[in-house]
Amino acid sequence: MDFDLVVKNGFIVTAAEVHPPGLEIGVKNGKISCIGVGLPQGPNTKVIDAEGGYITPGGVDSHVHLSQRNCPTGDNWETGSRSAIAGGTTTIIAFVSQEKTNDSLIPVLRDYQAKSTDQSYSDYGFHMILTNPNKTILEKELPMLAKEEGITSVKLYMTYEPMKLSDRQLLDIMTACRALGMTTMIHAENSDMIDLIIERLEARGHTEPYFHAFARPQLAEAEASYRAICLAEIIDAPVLLVHMSSETALQHVRAAQGRLLPIHAETCPQYLYLLSEKLKKTEDDHYHGAKSVCSPPLRHEPSDLDCLWQNVANGTITTFSSDHAPSKYNVPGGKRLGLINGIPKFTKIPNGLPGVETRMPLLFNRAGRIEQGNRITMPRFVQVTATNPAKLYGLDGIKGSIAPGYDADLVIWSIEKENGVTITNSMLHHDIDYTPYEGMTVKSWPRYTILRGNVVWDRDNGGLIGKMGDGKYLKRGKGQILNGRTGNPVKGMATGEREHWA
Amino acid sequence: MDFDLVVKNGFIVTAAEVHPPGLEIGVKNGKISCIGVGLPQGPNTKVIDAEGGYITPGGVDSHVHLSQRNCPTGDNWETGSRSAIAGGTTTIIAFVSQEKTNDSLIPVLRDYQAKSTDQSYSDYGFHMILTNPNKTILEKELPMLAKEEGITSVKLYMTYEPMKLSDRQLLDIMTACRALGMTTMIHAENSDMIDLIIERLEARGHTEPYFHAFARPQLAEAEASYRAICLAEIIDAPVLLVHMSSETALQHVRAAQGRLLPIHAETCPQYLYLLSEKLKKTEDDHYHGAKSVCSPPLRHEPSDLDCLWQNVANGTITTFSSDHAPSKYNVPGGKRLGLINGIPKFTKIPNGLPGVETRMPLLFNRAGRIEQGNRITMPRFVQVTATNPAKLYGLDGIKGSIAPGYDADLVIWSIEKENGVTITNSMLHHDIDYTPYEGMTVKSWPRYTILRGNVVWDRDNGGLIGKMGDGKYLKRGKGQILNGRTGNPVKGMATGEREHWA
Amino acid sequence: MDFDLVVKNGFIVTAAEVHPPGLEIGVKNGKISCIGVGLPQGPNTKVIDAEGGYITPGGVDSHVHLSQRNCPTGDNWETGSRSAIAGGTTTIIAFVSQEKTNDSLIPVLRDYQAKSTDQSYSDYGFHMILTNPNKTILEKELPMLAKEEGITSVKLYMTYEPMKLSDRQLLDIMTACRALGMTTMIHAENSDMIDLIIERLEARGHTEPYFHAFARPQLAEAEASYRAICLAEIIDAPVLLVHMSSETALQHVRAAQGRLLPIHAETCPQYLYLLSEKLKKTEDDHYHGAKSVCSPPLRHEPSDLDCLWQNVANGTITTFSSDHAPSKYNVPGGKRLGLINGIPKFTKIPNGLPGVETRMPLLFNRAGRIEQGNRITMPRFVQVTATNPAKLYGLDGIKGSIAPGYDADLVIWSIEKENGVTITNSMLHHDIDYTPYEGMTVKSWPRYTILRGNVVWDRDNGGLIGKMGDGKYLKRGKGQILNGRTGNPVKGMATGEREHWA
Amino acid sequence: MDFDLVVKNGFIVTAAEVHPPGLEIGVKNGKISCIGVGLPQGPNTKVIDAEGGYITPGGVDSHVHLSQRNCPTGDNWETGSRSAIAGGTTTIIAFVSQEKTNDSLIPVLRDYQAKSTDQSYSDYGFHMILTNPNKTILEKELPMLAKEEGITSVKLYMTYEPMKLSDRQLLDIMTACRALGMTTMIHAENSDMIDLIIERLEARGHTEPYFHAFARPQLAEAEASYRAICLAEIIDAPVLLVHMSSETALQHVRAAQGRLLPIHAETCPQYLYLLSEKLKKTEDDHYHGAKSVCSPPLRHEPSDLDCLWQNVANGTITTFSSDHAPSKYNVPGGKRLGLINGIPKFTKIPNGLPGVETRMPLLFNRAGRIEQGNRITMPRFVQVTATNPAKLYGLDGIKGSIAPGYDADLVIWSIEKENGVTITNSMLHHDIDYTPYEGMTVKSWPRYTILRGNVVWDRDNGGLIGKMGDGKYLKRGKGQILNGRTGNPVKGMATGEREHWA
Ligand SMILES: [Zn+2]
Ligand SMILES: [Zn+2]
Ligand SMILES: [Zn+2]
Ligand SMILES: [Zn+2]
Ligand SMILES: [Zn+2]
Ligand SMILES: [Zn+2]
Ligand SMILES: [Zn+2]
Ligand SMILES: [Zn+2]
Repeated sequence: MDFDLVVKNGFIVTAAEVHPPGLEIGVKNGKISCIGVGLPQGPNTKVIDAEGGYITPGGVDSHVHLSQRNCPTGDNWETGSRSAIAGGTTTIIAFVSQEKTNDSLIPVLRDYQAKSTDQSYSDYGFHMILTNPNKTILEKELPMLAKEEGITSVKLYMTYEPMKLSDRQLLDIMTACRALGMTTMIHAENSDMIDLIIERLEARGHTEPYFHAFARPQLAEAEASYRAICLAEIIDAPVLLVHMSSETALQHVRAAQGRLLPIHAETCPQYLYLLSEKLKKTEDDHYHGAKSVCSPPLRHEPSDLDCLWQNVANGTITTFSSDHAPSKYNVPGGKRLGLINGIPKFTKIPNGLPGVETRMPLLFNRAGRIEQGNRITMPRFVQVTATNPAKLYGLDGIKGSIAPGYDADLVIWSIEKENGVTITNSMLHHDIDYTPYEGMTVKSWPRYTILRGNVVWDRDNGGLIGKMGDGKYLKRGKGQILNGRTGNPVKGMATGEREHWA
Repeated sequence: MDFDLVVKNGFIVTAAEVHPPGLEIGVKNGKISCIGVGLPQGPNTKVIDAEGGYITPGGVDSHVHLSQRNCPTGDNWETGSRSAIAGGTTTIIAFVSQEKTNDSLIPVLRDYQAKSTDQSYSDYGFHMILTNPNKTILEKELPMLAKEEGITSVKLYMTYEPMKLSDRQLLDIMTACRALGMTTMIHAENSDMIDLIIERLEARGHTEPYFHAFARPQLAEAEASYRAICLAEIIDAPVLLVHMSSETALQHVRAAQGRLLPIHAETCPQYLYLLSEKLKKTEDDHYHGAKSVCSPPLRHEPSDLDCLWQNVANGTITTFSSDHAPSKYNVPGGKRLGLINGIPKFTKIPNGLPGVETRMPLLFNRAGRIEQGNRITMPRFVQVTATNPAKLYGLDGIKGSIAPGYDADLVIWSIEKENGVTITNSMLHHDIDYTPYEGMTVKSWPRYTILRGNVVWDRDNGGLIGKMGDGKYLKRGKGQILNGRTGNPVKGMATGEREHWA
Repeated sequence: MDFDLVVKNGFIVTAAEVHPPGLEIGVKNGKISCIGVGLPQGPNTKVIDAEGGYITPGGVDSHVHLSQRNCPTGDNWETGSRSAIAGGTTTIIAFVSQEKTNDSLIPVLRDYQAKSTDQSYSDYGFHMILTNPNKTILEKELPMLAKEEGITSVKLYMTYEPMKLSDRQLLDIMTACRALGMTTMIHAENSDMIDLIIERLEARGHTEPYFHAFARPQLAEAEASYRAICLAEIIDAPVLLVHMSSETALQHVRAAQGRLLPIHAETCPQYLYLLSEKLKKTEDDHYHGAKSVCSPPLRHEPSDLDCLWQNVANGTITTFSSDHAPSKYNVPGGKRLGLINGIPKFTKIPNGLPGVETRMPLLFNRAGRIEQGNRITMPRFVQVTATNPAKLYGLDGIKGSIAPGYDADLVIWSIEKENGVTITNSMLHHDIDYTPYEGMTVKSWPRYTILRGNVVWDRDNGGLIGKMGDGKYLKRGKGQILNGRTGNPVKGMATGEREHWA
Repeated sequence: MDFDLVVKNGFIVTAAEVHPPGLEIGVKNGKISCIGVGLPQGPNTKVIDAEGGYITPGGVDSHVHLSQRNCPTGDNWETGSRSAIAGGTTTIIAFVSQEKTNDSLIPVLRDYQAKSTDQSYSDYGFHMILTNPNKTILEKELPMLAKEEGITSVKLYMTYEPMKLSDRQLLDIMTACRALGMTTMIHAENSDMIDLIIERLEARGHTEPYFHAFARPQLAEAEASYRAICLAEIIDAPVLLVHMSSETALQHVRAAQGRLLPIHAETCPQYLYLLSEKLKKTEDDHYHGAKSVCSPPLRHEPSDLDCLWQNVANGTITTFSSDHAPSKYNVPGGKRLGLINGIPKFTKIPNGLPGVETRMPLLFNRAGRIEQGNRITMPRFVQVTATNPAKLYGLDGIKGSIAPGYDADLVIWSIEKENGVTITNSMLHHDIDYTPYEGMTVKSWPRYTILRGNVVWDRDNGGLIGKMGDGKYLKRGKGQILNGRTGNPVKGMATGEREHWA
C-alpha cells in the first residue's frame, strides 16, 4: 500500500458507472493497485489532483494507420503516437499491411517492427492486413503470429483493387481466425458498385473531390455489411465491421446482434461530425475538398450524423476508433496526388483523415448526463473508447479499464470551461498540415494523460512530456466476443447440420 | 359475332376475379373475340361445355429448360412442350444458353432455333442465358435480340462455375437491359459459401445426395438475393429472382416491394410440396435421392413449405414456374452421372426436376375459396401461373388473360371428383423416367387445354390431340414492371445524385 | 346480342389490366352483357364513343356521410349522391348511425331509410355505426340486418366520446360480425392520448384550428391501429381500418398482411394531397383553417403524402374512399360552431371534408403508366376505387368490375387535355360552400358517368342528366376477405388452443 | 486503511467485467472502502477467503410482494427477507398497494411500514402500487413520497379488475412521475382480451389450472406492451415493463430501445425455466397445476424460453426480478381458493409463485463463459440482478455495484461442484409449502451473503446467521434512465410540436 502515484479528487468512470466522488486511485509499478477511499500516501507518492474532473481509462484506438507504404506522407510511429498521447490515447493498434505480392507475412511484419520499435510514445500493437491469404499463411503463419507475436486480429477489405478479397477468401480467413480466437475486422463496401459509378462519373468529367461522396453510396456499405454478416454467420465466426457510416448497414448489424450473432461495429469521429459538404471547394481553394476524402465517404445529411450518434448511444456500435490514416495536404505525394495537371481526380486522392489526437475529445464533447443534452453517457464513452476495444482485441485485464490489476493508463479531463477548447491544427502533435476539425470547439480536453503510472501529457505544464520509446509493444491474447456468441442455430439449417462440415 | 368456338357453362377466372356463372367465351380466328351472356352460335361454331368447372387462362410457364447442351438426357422441344400442353400450359419460355466460350450470341441462338422450330406443341419464346457478357453482346446483340428476335429477357447466374457472373457483370447487364426494357432473371445463391461447404463435405466423405441439401443452405440464397436487390436498386433496374425457397430471402423481397423497388420473385412447385427428406435413400434404392436434386435444394421443414405458400398468398411471389430441368434417372448421362464407381457424389448429379406438366395441377390443388381451406384464391392462381408471367415477359395483350383480343388459350378444369387425380409418371407426357410427385393426389386436372382456339388436350377423349408444330414462336415485346417502379429515391443519396452518373 | 348500349373506342381498365384497344362493351337491361370485338349494333342500340379515353368501373365510394344527425349542415342524399355521380361514382355506401341512447337499431335504420328512399342519384347501401352494442343488437338485430336488409358491415369508433367503444365491445362486435360474414370498419385513434393533449392545449389557449393537427398525432393512430389488429387477430376476424394517414400504422397493417391476417386499409384523397398548413389562418380569414379540420388530421410533411401514395401503390391500401363528411363553412351550425365569441375552438369545429365528387379525379390524376411519372397503375386505380370496395362489402358480381354480368356502371374519362381541369367549388354538385381542393388542377375528369346503362353525367352536354331517385338501394351479401385469410395460427398459442374458446 | 473485513481470493465481477484474480475487497463501516492488491489486514480485520469463487454484488430484487392484503398466505417481511438473504439477495423492493377505495396513500403506507419495520433481514424499499390516482395523490402525495419517504417508483396495472387503470390514468401518472424523476413500472396485458377468453373458457367448463395459460395469450401481452410504449413515447416518460414473457412484446421493446426511447424491460426466472405443462395435473394431484399459476402465465414451448434467454443476453432485458408473490398451496385461503367444491376454477387461484431465494442461483446457473455453453456472461448477470435495478430505482452509489463507496453487499459463490445443488423446498427459507423448481439442479449457490460488511448467510457454517431487523429501510433517490433518453423526436410530429402541450 505504498503507492507511486495517487490520483484523487475526480470522478472515476468505468464501463459500468460514474463512481461516487471521493475515490482515489493508487498506482504501484505502473499498475493500478488499489481504488479506494483515503488511500495512504508515502513519502515517494506522487499525488495528482483531478480537480473535480472526470477520470477515464486511457484511450485505446484500435484503428490507426502509421508508416504504411501506401501512405508515404502520413504519420510515422513517432508523430502518430505522440499525437495519440496528447489526445488521451495511451494504446494504439496499428496495421502491418501485406501486399498481394507478399507470399509470407514474416518479412512484412519485420519491416513494420523495424519502423516502430523504440519509436512510440504510446503502447501499441499490430493488426495484420491480409490481402493474399495463401495456405501457408492461413495454416502456419497466422497461428505463429497469434502465439509468438501476440497479433490476434486481421483486417480484410471487400473493396480497393490492391487489397480486396473474394467471399471465399473472407470465409477461409474467418475460419482460420475463429480457430485461433483471432478477431476479423472487415472494411465492407461493394467494390463493383463503386467501380461502376467511378467509371461513369469519370466519363462525364465528374472528378472533383465532392464526387467521391457519390462514388461510394451508402448502399455499397449496406450490401457489403450484410454480406459480411452472412459470411460470418455461416462460418460461425465473430467479426467487426470497421468505420460504419450507413443506417441500413447498422440496421443489419443491430438485427444480427439481436439474434446473438457475434457481430461488432466500429465508427469514427468523422461520421458523427462531418458531412459531404466538406468535400466541396472553397472560395480560395478549389481542391480543399481533398482534405476530407476518406472511405466510406462523408455522408450528406445531418440526419446521417444523428443516426450514427443514435447507434453509439443504443449500444449497436462496439468500438469508436479514429481510422487515423492521413496524408499531408500540401505536399507532393500527399493529397496533391489527386491533382493532375491542375485538374482534380478524386480517385487519385489518398484516402484518409488525421484524427488520432482529436478522437477522444470529440466523443467526450457529447458525453455526460443525458438530461443535460449529451448524446451518450460517460460509461458509454468509456466502453467504446477503451474498454470494448481492449477486450475485443485481447487486452482484457491489461488495458481499457480503471480497476486494480490493470495498467495505470488514465486520462484526467479538464473541468469544462465556459468557452471550451477550439481545435486548431497548430495545437495538434501529428505531422500533418491540417485537421478536418479546424475551428470546431469541444467542451474539454485531456488535462493529463498517464501511461502506466507516468504522466506523459500535462496540458498546462509542459504539454507532451513523455518520450519516444516510452511506448511498449503489446503481445495480445485472444479477443473476447462482446456481442452475442458463436454456436447459434442458423435459420433454415437442420439441427446438427453445420457440424457435418464446420 | 360468328364464332369458331364458344366455351360455356364454366366459371371464368381472371387475375381479378371469378366471374359470375353464365358467361360464355366466343373465339374467332384463334383469339378471344367476346365474353358475354348468351353468345350466338352459328352453324360452324364448335361448343365446349365446361360442365361447371373453372376456366383459367392457358398456363404460361416462364422457366423451362429444353434441349440444353448441359442436359443431354432432358426433354427436347417435342417432349417438353407436349408435356406442357397436357398439364394446361400453352406457353413456355425456354432458354438459349450461352457458354463462356461463345463470344457471340447469334450462333447460339440459331442452334436453339434449329432445335425448336416446328418441334413445339405449345407456343414458346426464349430467354437468353448470359454467361459472358462482352461489349459487343451488350451494345449490339442484346438490342438486336430485343428488336429483331423478340427476346426481351435474360437470365443470369450468381452461382455455378460455368455460368456465374461477378457483381460488376450483373450491373452491366442490368444497365443494358434496363435501357432496352428487358427483364433480368437472377439465380441468386452465394457461390463461395456453397463451394466452401462442398469442399468440406467432400473432405469428410459426405457425398450422398442428401448432403446436397446441406451444401446450399438458405443463408446462401438470402445473401445473394439481398445482394441482387441492392445491385438492382443502385442501377434502378427491375429484376426477377428465380425459384425462391428461403424465408429470409423473401423477407428482403417483400421489404423491397414495400419500398416500391421493381423486384419480382418466382417460386416453383417443389418448394411448396417437397422436403429434403426426398433426398434420402430408400430401402431399395440408395441413390433414390438423386431424383430430387435441384438448386436451390429442397428445404428441411414443413414450416419452410408453409412460408412459401404464405408468400404466394400474400402477393410477394410474382410468378410460379416449373423450372422444368430434368435429367433421366436411370440412364447414362442422366442422374447416374453422380454415381462414380457405385459411390454417390452429389456434386456430379445433374441438377433439376421434371415439372412442366404437373405445375398447374399442383398449384390448382390448393386454389379456391379460402374459407374451404385453400391456400390461395383462384385469381391468385391465375396471376402467378399466367397473367403475371405474360406481362412481365412482354406478352401483355396476347397471352395470360381471358379477355377479348387475347389469344384463346384456355384451360378447363375437371370438376373436383371425390378422389382427385393421383399423379403417376406413366400418365405424364415428358420423356423422363420419373416424377418427384409420384403417388401424390391432386384435386383436379385439366379437362381441356385450348391453344389459340384449338383443343389440343382432351383428357377424356383422345388425350393429347394437338400436334408437334402447333406451337408458334413468340416475338415478345418489352416487359412490364409488376411491382413498384423505377426512379425511386435511394436511401442516403442526395436528390439528383444518381443522375450524375446513371 | 341486341344491345341497348355499346361503348366503343376506349381503353377498358379492370382490376387486372388495361385491355388492348378495340374492345367494345355491350349493355343490355342495365347490365354488361358482352365485351368483345365488333359488337353488333341494332336499331335501338345507343353508341357511345369513348374517343380513346379510359373506361373504368363506376366508382364505389364506401365511406360517405349523408344526412347524419350530428352533421346538420352537410349533404343530404340528394345533394351528396348527385355530387358522386358528377365525379364518376355510381355507388355510395353511407352510414346509419346509432346513438348511445338508441337501444335498438331498427328505428334508427327506418329513419335513415326514410331520408334516403327515392332521394338518391346513385346506387347506395348502408353501413351501420354501432355505438351501443347491447346483447339484443348483437344477437338479434345484426343477423336481421344482414339477412333482411343487406347491411353487411359495421363501423366502430375507438375515439370520440359519443361513439367510442371499449376493447371488449370491439371484440364482441367483431365476433358477432365474423359469424355473419360482416365486415368491421374501425376508426382507430387512441382516445385518451387525444383527450390529454386537447386538455393541455386548451389550458394554454392553443385553440386555433391549426392545433387540431397537434391534438391527434400519428402516434395515436399507430397505437390504436396496432391494437385493432391485435384484437382482430385474437378473435380471428377480418377488419378494415378506415382513413389511414400514418406511416407507422401502415407498417403494422403491412406486416399483418404479410402474415396473412385479414387486415384491410382505407385511405382518402386528403391524405394524399393536403398538409396541415391548410389548417392555418390566411391573411383575410383567421378561421380559414376550420375548412380543413378532419380526423385523423392533415399531417405535416410532404414525406407523409409520399408515404401514403407509396402504400396505395404497394398494395397495402385496400380501398380509397372520400370520407365525405362535410359541414358548410359559413353557416350557423356548420364549421362556424367552432367560433365561440369570435374565438376559434378547434374542438368545437365539426370534423370532416367534402370530397365525394373529387375523389375519383384526384386519384386518376396520378394514375397511368408509371414510366410517365404516375404514382399508380390504372388497374390499381380501379382496384381501390371500385373493385376492392365492391368485393369487400358484398357487392361482388354486381358492382365494381367491367365484366359481363355486372351492372353497367362505367366512367369514361376525358382524354387528358393540355391544361387539365382546375377544381373550383362552383363546378361541384354538393351543397357545400367550399372545397379544400379549390384551385388544384387535375389531368382529367369524367366525360360520362353511366349508371346501369344510363348516362347520368354528360360533362359536355347537359352535365348532370340523371335524376333524383335513379339510384337503387343495394342489399349487400357477405363481404370477401381481400387480404389474407381467417384461421391463421397465432404466435405463442398452442395448436388447437383457440378452438377451446373461440 | 484499517479494514473491518477483507474479502480475498475470488473473481470480482462488476457490470463491466470479471476482474483479474488477486484483487481484494476492503470493507470499513459497512461500505466498500477499497479494492486492490494486497490490502493490509489489521488485528481487527476479518478475512473471508472466497476460495476462487465468483464475487458478485448482493442481489437487488426489485419486484417482491410481501404481506400484501390480497395475498394472506404469502410471505411476510420476516420470512420473505430471510429467504432473500439465503439466496444472495441483500436488497428487496416490495410494494405498498393502494386499493381503489383508498383515497389517500398515506394510511396505506403507514400500514405497510408498520408491517415491515424491524422485520426485515435484508435492506428494503417500497414501490407504490397506484390503483386510484386522484388529483391529490398525483399533485401532493407522490411528491411527498418521493421527497420524504424515498419512494421513487410506482407500479401500474393494465389488467386485473381491482387494479387496472385506463390509458388516461396511465398517462396522467406517467406525467406526474416524469416530473418527479420517478420510475413507472407497468404490468402490461390487455384486460379485455383476457376477460373475453375467460368467459368463453368458463362457458365451456374449461376451468382447470392449465386453462390459465390459454386465458392470457402472448398476444395480450404484445398488445398492451406496445400500447404502454406508445403512451410513454407520447408523454416522453421512462417506463419499465414488468415480467415480460412474449417475443413479440420484446420485439417492440427492442425496437423502441433502438430509437433511444427510455423503455426498460424486466423478466423473471419462471419465464426462463418453466413451461405451461407445469399447469397440468399430475397423476396424484389433479390440482397440482395451481402451484404454477402466475401472470403472465407460463408459455408453451421451449422456444419461448430460448427467446427470453436471448433477450437477457442481447441486452433488451434490463432487470431480472423474482416477482415473488406466493400463496401457500395446501392451506385454506391459499392456492386452494381455486378449488370450489372440489372443482378447480383457475380464475379463483391466487396468482404468483415463490422465487425470491432461487432467483440468483437460477440465473447464475447459466452465467459464465459463453464458449463453455453458458447463456449469459457474468457481467450481464451482475447487470440484471443488481446494478441495473439499483440504478433504475434510485440506489446508484449505494447498492448494486462492487466499488468503493458502495454498501458492502456481496455474494460469494461456491465453486461449481460436480453435481451442483439440487433445489428442494426444504432447503428454502420462505414460509411457503412448495417451490416450482423442486428437484431442479443448479450449478452453484451462494456460499456467503454479506450485508453491509456483515456475513448474514454462511451456507456451510450456520446458514442464516443474520437477524430479523438487520435490514434497513432505503430512502431512494431519483431513478436513472438506463436505455435511451427522454426528449426524442416523435415520428410524425413537427419540430417543437410537443412543447405546445407537454
Ligand atoms: Zn477501411
Ligand atoms: Zn482504416
Ligand atoms: Zn436456377
Ligand atoms: Zn432453371
Ligand atoms: Zn372516422
Ligand atoms: Zn368517416
Ligand atoms: Zn404483475
Ligand atoms: Zn408482481
